[in-house]
Amino acid sequence: MTPVITLLTDYGLEDGYVGACHGVIAGIAPAVRIIDVCHLVPAGDVRKGAAILAQTIPYLPAGVHLGVVDPGAGGARRAVAVEAGGRVFVGPDNGLLSWAVRACGGARAAYQITDDELFLKPVAPTFHGRDVFAPVAAHLCAGRKPADLGPELPLDRLVSLPTPTSLLREGSVEGEVVSVDRFGNTQLSIALGDLTALGVRVGDTLGVWLGRRQLSMPFRETFAAVPPGELVAFTDSAGLIAIAVNSGDAAQRLGLPPGAHVRLAPTG
Amino acid sequence: MTPVITLLTDYGLEDGYVGACHGVIAGIAPAVRIIDVCHLVPAGDVRKGAAILAQTIPYLPAGVHLGVVDPGAGGARRAVAVEAGGRVFVGPDNGLLSWAVRACGGARAAYQITDDELFLKPVAPTFHGRDVFAPVAAHLCAGRKPADLGPELPLDRLVSLPTPTSLLREGSVEGEVVSVDRFGNTQLSIALGDLTALGVRVGDTLGVWLGRRQLSMPFRETFAAVPPGELVAFTDSAGLIAIAVNSGDAAQRLGLPPGAHVRLAPTG
Amino acid sequence: MTPVITLLTDYGLEDGYVGACHGVIAGIAPAVRIIDVCHLVPAGDVRKGAAILAQTIPYLPAGVHLGVVDPGAGGARRAVAVEAGGRVFVGPDNGLLSWAVRACGGARAAYQITDDELFLKPVAPTFHGRDVFAPVAAHLCAGRKPADLGPELPLDRLVSLPTPTSLLREGSVEGEVVSVDRFGNTQLSIALGDLTALGVRVGDTLGVWLGRRQLSMPFRETFAAVPPGELVAFTDSAGLIAIAVNSGDAAQRLGLPPGAHVRLAPTG
Repeated sequence: MTPVITLLTDYGLEDGYVGACHGVIAGIAPAVRIIDVCHLVPAGDVRKGAAILAQTIPYLPAGVHLGVVDPGAGGARRAVAVEAGGRVFVGPDNGLLSWAVRACGGARAAYQITDDELFLKPVAPTFHGRDVFAPVAAHLCAGRKPADLGPELPLDRLVSLPTPTSLLREGSVEGEVVSVDRFGNTQLSIALGDLTALGVRVGDTLGVWLGRRQLSMPFRETFAAVPPGELVAFTDSAGLIAIAVNSGDAAQRLGLPPGAHVRLAPTG
Repeated sequence: MTPVITLLTDYGLEDGYVGACHGVIAGIAPAVRIIDVCHLVPAGDVRKGAAILAQTIPYLPAGVHLGVVDPGAGGARRAVAVEAGGRVFVGPDNGLLSWAVRACGGARAAYQITDDELFLKPVAPTFHGRDVFAPVAAHLCAGRKPADLGPELPLDRLVSLPTPTSLLREGSVEGEVVSVDRFGNTQLSIALGDLTALGVRVGDTLGVWLGRRQLSMPFRETFAAVPPGELVAFTDSAGLIAIAVNSGDAAQRLGLPPGAHVRLAPTG
Repeated sequence: MTPVITLLTDYGLEDGYVGACHGVIAGIAPAVRIIDVCHLVPAGDVRKGAAILAQTIPYLPAGVHLGVVDPGAGGARRAVAVEAGGRVFVGPDNGLLSWAVRACGGARAAYQITDDELFLKPVAPTFHGRDVFAPVAAHLCAGRKPADLGPELPLDRLVSLPTPTSLLREGSVEGEVVSVDRFGNTQLSIALGDLTALGVRVGDTLGVWLGRRQLSMPFRETFAAVPPGELVAFTDSAGLIAIAVNSGDAAQRLGLPPGAHVRLAPTG
């Protein structure tokens, strides 16, 4: 089996930061395959990074999954390795990994990374990705065990991000915008099951409340089911309800940033 | 031989979409090499995607060439696998693949992808790249034959994009802007042969008509042959005539978007 | 040992230029691992490219290191292969490689690349990355020697970029902004040793002169040592002094472009 390391960071692509991490890994574990999940997580946006990792992890081969969105780099936060679903997640203990870990069935064991024998020295306090996490991930691929990295952590001490939630009440479901993708598709914290529980079926018309604005739009299999330029709700590739404009940008048209409150209900 | 899959999409790099496709391929065909051709095709811009793929394909090793710019995802368009020049092209049948197929000598056989046994289930209607095309490409590398994917398609039913053309008449050649690259270099649908037919040689001065504006500029081997800041026409790396500003941005200076009409003629 | 080629260019990611280089390399040397150092060097910005390459090279496995930021493509500049520190650097002789070569202990030998037998023909004058440098790099990985590429060059004829310098005088140190990263962190041409020579220690307050403006800020291990929104100076991951705003953008707040003059001194 080819060992796999996946990388998600907010390092951007305009500098050599990602290249340095690839180089460190390739130097230690030359046979490893590196899969770049995303490096354009907005700087310091732990929630967005957590959402991308959690929604991508079901499609990544089991391996070592490195995540570094680390606004507290060099500060007090722990570095951790977390075992879940036959995978090992490595990164700062700031919640970044928490949604992906839960998507893999929850943590089975966690270790604080304290044994600095594997680190690149001197460790740059502002670049643990290169000097701590990349070499640790590479050594894990080369045979080290997570338990070798440092003391075991009680699972309830791992930092978790609050989950975007949905609330069913009085014949409607409330949630929030989780993320907006390149196409302007607006993903909500509302799952298909929530709409099903309200009796909404594909083909129905959906009432949508955005703050005080009320809209209605068709609920379809995909955005391509409506004419270009029209609003539509559909179940997206992560199983969540999304609002889109066919061949357009829904987030821009509706002014919907991440975190915005949304309520959905069947109409008439 | 290392099997190769190349990827061209409009998924962008700010989400995990490309990473998910890499993951699906690596899970099915761990030994395959993936070459990213481009993921920043403007959203839904089938023509730009087709141009990039056609101009890059001569430099890619033979393999499975996946292209997904798919504004009709989940709609009525077919999914196809097209054999051409010892390669297999996989993607939506919307013209995206057509210029590359022609650059490889034209289609030898085409198959509609209907056998969903290879797909990831449930197939997200909005992410066929991950659930349909990536697994199909990986299985093709792992030994499946295009003919196993579904019924053969008559070649004349494949969707083709109209080709950007040039027209020689009355001592000049007319064409359009095909694409603009990062440097602002403006690629025309006019080939070196068109200028040669008009008697233009490297070293000459070229008359350039942009709508009602008329300019003249040197025709040289490369933009570096003129001083920084000056306009120049040259034969670009795809064999097409391009207008550039040495160390500057010609598209911006001249206001030349893709599709703009251009006429060239020898001067005096 | 897996042979390694690293790539740094200003080709951007919105076209197929990088993909074409990968394809050419994979076609000639299928077993090679390609590491992308950076492709978003600002167009033609040789200094920025040189800085990224020099700061990343210590973390890249020894191999063939291709750098192409080449505003003079097709012009008079030489193409070179430079041996340094057990590595081979390949690219235009315009200074791009010079800081990395020095970071590897200086050039041991240099060769002008003139033997066009290895080139892709016809060579596009504007795309030596694809037609000259990529095939040469691949053949070097496949066993060619740098000495096979063309005549040896006296080392003092290699083009070097002037180094960003620092100047210690009258109890302060002067330098300039070398580069600004994605986070707005502003890297100076002043090393930790310069501050140490002035008696500055981590924990001290630093006086900072930007043109006629005077500021003071804490000198800490990392930006995370100050509250969000506050200015801080620290030693960055390349060993140089940087000015940052914790969870903010220092370059934007202070209006500090590359090249701006900065003076630092201990306070009180």
